[in-house]
Amino acid sequence: MSYIKIPSHLVPSDPQGSDLLALEREKATFNVKELTLALYGSKELEKDNRILKILENDPVFDKSNLYFMGRTELFENALRKDKRLVQLIKEHKWNMEEIQAAVSFIDLPGPYGLHRGMFIPTIFGQGTEEQKKKFLIPALKYEIIGCYAQTELGHGSNVQGLETTATYIPETDEFEINSPYLTASKWWIGGLGRTANHAIVMAQLKSNGKDYGPHPFIIQIRDLETHQPLPGITVGDIGPKFGYNATDNGFMLFDHVRIPRFNMLSKFSQIKKGTGEYISPPNDKLSYGTMVFIRAMIVTSVRTSLARAATIAIRYSAVRRQFVDKDQPKKSKDGRIVETSVLDYTMQQYRLFPVIAQAYACFYTAKAMIDLYMKYLKQSSSGDFSLLADLHASSSGLKSLTTTMAVDSIEECRRACGGHGYSNFGGFVTFYQNYLPNITWEGDNYILTHQTTRYLLKTFREVVSNKNPEIYASQSKKNPTLTYILDYINNPNQVCNATTSLDFKNNELQLRAFGHRAAYLIANAVDQIDNQNKSWNSMLIEVNRISRAHCQYLLVKNFITAIQEQPQPITDEKLRILHSSPALKKVMESVCNLFVLHTMEKEIGEFFECRFITDSEAKLLRTQVYDLLQEIRPNAVSLVDAFNIPEFVLQSALGRYDGKVYETMIDWASKEPLNGITLDVNPNSEVLFRNKNKAKL
Amino acid sequence: MSYIKIPSHLVPSDPQGSDLLALEREKATFNVKELTLALYGSKELEKDNRILKILENDPVFDKSNLYFMGRTELFENALRKDKRLVQLIKEHKWNMEEIQAAVSFIDLPGPYGLHRGMFIPTIFGQGTEEQKKKFLIPALKYEIIGCYAQTELGHGSNVQGLETTATYIPETDEFEINSPYLTASKWWIGGLGRTANHAIVMAQLKSNGKDYGPHPFIIQIRDLETHQPLPGITVGDIGPKFGYNATDNGFMLFDHVRIPRFNMLSKFSQIKKGTGEYISPPNDKLSYGTMVFIRAMIVTSVRTSLARAATIAIRYSAVRRQFVDKDQPKKSKDGRIVETSVLDYTMQQYRLFPVIAQAYACFYTAKAMIDLYMKYLKQSSSGDFSLLADLHASSSGLKSLTTTMAVDSIEECRRACGGHGYSNFGGFVTFYQNYLPNITWEGDNYILTHQTTRYLLKTFREVVSNKNPEIYASQSKKNPTLTYILDYINNPNQVCNATTSLDFKNNELQLRAFGHRAAYLIANAVDQIDNQNKSWNSMLIEVNRISRAHCQYLLVKNFITAIQEQPQPITDEKLRILHSSPALKKVMESVCNLFVLHTMEKEIGEFFECRFITDSEAKLLRTQVYDLLQEIRPNAVSLVDAFNIPEFVLQSALGRYDGKVYETMIDWASKEPLNGITLDVNPNSEVLFRNKNKAKL
Repeated sequence: MSYIKIPSHLVPSDPQGSDLLALEREKATFNVKELTLALYGSKELEKDNRILKILENDPVFDKSNLYFMGRTELFENALRKDKRLVQLIKEHKWNMEEIQAAVSFIDLPGPYGLHRGMFIPTIFGQGTEEQKKKFLIPALKYEIIGCYAQTELGHGSNVQGLETTATYIPETDEFEINSPYLTASKWWIGGLGRTANHAIVMAQLKSNGKDYGPHPFIIQIRDLETHQPLPGITVGDIGPKFGYNATDNGFMLFDHVRIPRFNMLSKFSQIKKGTGEYISPPNDKLSYGTMVFIRAMIVTSVRTSLARAATIAIRYSAVRRQFVDKDQPKKSKDGRIVETSVLDYTMQQYRLFPVIAQAYACFYTAKAMIDLYMKYLKQSSSGDFSLLADLHASSSGLKSLTTTMAVDSIEECRRACGGHGYSNFGGFVTFYQNYLPNITWEGDNYILTHQTTRYLLKTFREVVSNKNPEIYASQSKKNPTLTYILDYINNPNQVCNATTSLDFKNNELQLRAFGHRAAYLIANAVDQIDNQNKSWNSMLIEVNRISRAHCQYLLVKNFITAIQEQPQPITDEKLRILHSSPALKKVMESVCNLFVLHTMEKEIGEFFECRFITDSEAKLLRTQVYDLLQEIRPNAVSLVDAFNIPEFVLQSALGRYDGKVYETMIDWASKEPLNGITLDVNPNSEVLFRNKNKAKL
Repeated sequence: MSYIKIPSHLVPSDPQGSDLLALEREKATFNVKELTLALYGSKELEKDNRILKILENDPVFDKSNLYFMGRTELFENALRKDKRLVQLIKEHKWNMEEIQAAVSFIDLPGPYGLHRGMFIPTIFGQGTEEQKKKFLIPALKYEIIGCYAQTELGHGSNVQGLETTATYIPETDEFEINSPYLTASKWWIGGLGRTANHAIVMAQLKSNGKDYGPHPFIIQIRDLETHQPLPGITVGDIGPKFGYNATDNGFMLFDHVRIPRFNMLSKFSQIKKGTGEYISPPNDKLSYGTMVFIRAMIVTSVRTSLARAATIAIRYSAVRRQFVDKDQPKKSKDGRIVETSVLDYTMQQYRLFPVIAQAYACFYTAKAMIDLYMKYLKQSSSGDFSLLADLHASSSGLKSLTTTMAVDSIEECRRACGGHGYSNFGGFVTFYQNYLPNITWEGDNYILTHQTTRYLLKTFREVVSNKNPEIYASQSKKNPTLTYILDYINNPNQVCNATTSLDFKNNELQLRAFGHRAAYLIANAVDQIDNQNKSWNSMLIEVNRISRAHCQYLLVKNFITAIQEQPQPITDEKLRILHSSPALKKVMESVCNLFVLHTMEKEIGEFFECRFITDSEAKLLRTQVYDLLQEIRPNAVSLVDAFNIPEFVLQSALGRYDGKVYETMIDWASKEPLNGITLDVNPNSEVLFRNKNKAKL
């Protein structure tokens, strides 16, 4: 509802946003629909369109008041949407991919998120058949609602340090769950605050006086009728957060709560009845596989988030005009000098075009990760785990690198929209706030790099210590890490050897550059640890650097591989479409080059340090980056159009497809509830504050 | 009020936060109170303590529920505080500095902010005596409340492009204020949305068919009795924002609104009665002076914001423990192996200690800016404006550099607190959100750098084209820009020449490094523009780089100057205290070195590019940075204690002086209002959502 009548005769001053975007779209050198198809494939597009239409037409999923809601109202709204989603899932018999699509279009992380995302999958993966019968069936019917309670007030990343205990009591064949300290309180648990009536609780298993480390237990925490916490359980919402305020992240303390022995998830390890004997798990490699998959999904979400941010910023930059570029003044149709489109300023291009390129880079790396994961699944089912170590190391580092990149780039896009980027109506604020936890959860982005670098140092040592490194040569075709390590060992003095700025467009040079730099950093760290006795702690800054260098290599490698000549016939639909259109291939080459060379320029210090590049070559590199900005400029709007992010998701006055930026800003402002209350603003009145008309709210 | 009873017998697991912080404080090599005095001086400390006590004891300024408030409630709270502040100002007869201190302790930007900060000062500076009588007197008594309406929906930085018109009507001796387009709507105007009844409106002055550009007009916009908008005026709040939600930023459209000619602020330019003749202003240098002052104030606020962020992150990092460092396991008093304090990890030090150093750097640059501004004020009153150009250029670039640095560092501190940094209770969330606009307002941080670089290029050209550069030598002592430009012209092939990591502690080397790099970038840009015909637009990326390099030089220079030997006797109280204690000087030297060398390491690419440093020297530099982290480690907590940021401002469970992190987190969570409502969470119930108990809210 509108609180203020905006004069209807007013329009924005010329040129109109819709005309400017139309002009931009005319300039494109490729077919946007074709690129969209090459990104998502026909099956995914059909599914997305189908689900989007259902949600857009359902009043429960209306988003028009979201930006005005306080915490409680937002939570209530999300709960309502989650309930409606459950009905739709049943009605349309949606599968996991379809549910995932719906959740991403609804775009309001709500109270059932962890029930779907962790509670059900954990019982599925770690429960026995009897446990599945008892808990999984009602969970799938939403007769019980669960959450996954691992993190504690005092412990996050270090799961081994959790303080909640589960002590086996042989007399009654029960576990006693207890929180011995305040810091043992479960914390951050999504859906726990007000919603869940069950929880999977990670607790330190104790039996016969021995400690067996953290294990998962299913615990009913609230009465199914009254929804009151069960005896011995203190539970509640942890309060407001930067984002995710539609979710009731919760805390929970146990005061000697007894549960049946049956409730320890026992597919892999168990406690024997009466004796309390511990049966240890056969193999923990399986759980690594799940982590790898979750991280591949996170990288997939990075591509979408970058695409969303770039879409808003690029479209608004085409509509927004500021100052007259005195060297190249722009004229309107009637010959007046008009202000220059912000998108024509090189600084704006330099800030935004790399974000487009990062989004495309993540498309191809997400694809490569999922392809590799599928291959691993196939191999591991026949007992071959050889891909796992590299896959785990790479996915850890890539999750870290790409989510930090995404967070920084979303914020850069927001800032590049000037003042209006600060308004919620811009479409960045809640989007950014909800995206932000990605750099902390599923492995803190700094800690994750330890795993990547440990693997890289180990691999390097193995290759060096092997007298005959040629045995790796055959493997190295499949394993890019081995490739660049071998190249470095064979020639540690690689140099760039560029004589013109065009040389930097050479893919072979690009791969050599990123491989050499990563290998140099690894070699250097191995030397410091093995020969100079440096402690791991003293190396942590290098550890982070190495993981970043390795993962940037992977992003570069995957992007280049996707657009290089493919073996015929091309079976993958997306690649086939890309390679059947010379226009598409050409624009993707520009985007790929920008990603590679902008990354190189940003990290130029390390390319200097490993002596790959000289100062005059660095100037050529920079020239090429600037040339690429010009090369991409005509396609900028169409490149973000191709991401196909629906208006329903953007929720942005600035990023509208039709360019009606200013009309939307003022229309939405007229609906701000603060405009509907009556105030006494006179500081000299006796009453400090009097709200005459609160009822109207 | 608490919605959940937390079991009272539980305490955090050992070691306790209070004990850990006490141990940290024992390690300090200097006297914290002495450093606090050296930072603020006795007068400022006395004033701050006096005002803080008044606010802390006034229930209106209570902050305990702030984190739970939605937009409307937050605005009402801020309005109430602003009203109470007006009463206190009258009661205690506070001067500008005292009001400023109160505002910064209240720390909730509210609806009267622009009345005090822009409306009153603008009338004071640009109004005639008659205008002051009519508007300033009632404004000072808060009988009228004003705002400053410049920015429009379609125009921010480019003030010349504003669309609101003020046309002189000789027949009635009035101006007609009009918004010809939707984009002409005033936008972002603080206090306009719901509060102000007057506005200073910047509008394009038109008279006799001629355009005279933007000028300020005072316009009454709401009825003083009914508070309804006056005829022809459409006004309201612009809606929710990333932060600043306690302020009613507003929009406003004029439909041919008439105001008396008297209402054009006419100290500098006027329209003559009847003839409509325009009298142009004598000199616009005065308004530059005000901008310089505002920017110096912004840099002062940077120091406080960095100090606040560092305080929270450092204290929490001392309390928080995570994993066991296997090379150096830590033991508790009873000999158990305990997890390592996060502050002992080099990566955490590398992320946080530079923020401490940046805060101290900004202390000394803010001081230098204000000292220079005072000198300029003195000189300009006798007609000498020679300092203005350099002051304006430097203050533009420093505002840009330091606010971007602050925003990035606050966020880095937040992230370094792991999951709890994402909770509002951490103390970063609203603080960051409210700080964020600093990078956009008072000159967008990218656009500001144009002004700095234009001046630097001009200065360089002047020095070069002058056949006899020695004439600058005498001036260069006072003007650091001239110093480094002359040094570069005399020796464009400066090199680092470091042979040990200790060499990087040499102040002379440090200044040479930053000066050489800035001058190299300037020389290079001049060459591209003057000899290679590059357009300004094609140079914008370099323009930004040059401004950053110059301003980093200034930060380095000001810090070094403050801690170097001082001419005796030292008249400045703060410097006298610093230099009378060898312990203080020693720790400040470490902090200064860290600031300089960490900045150098971060920008290492440019030091390579100007051939100042080689790859082996870069390794020595890095070694020195790591050594400095160790040097600072024992003093880390005391260095942030010295900033003396009161608990009343921090509002942080993580950054508490007493280390009671976990007790506070759970206590505050128990007060979350979401814990007080009743819900129906069953997705299978008929009602999509039923809130049985909304009244309780």
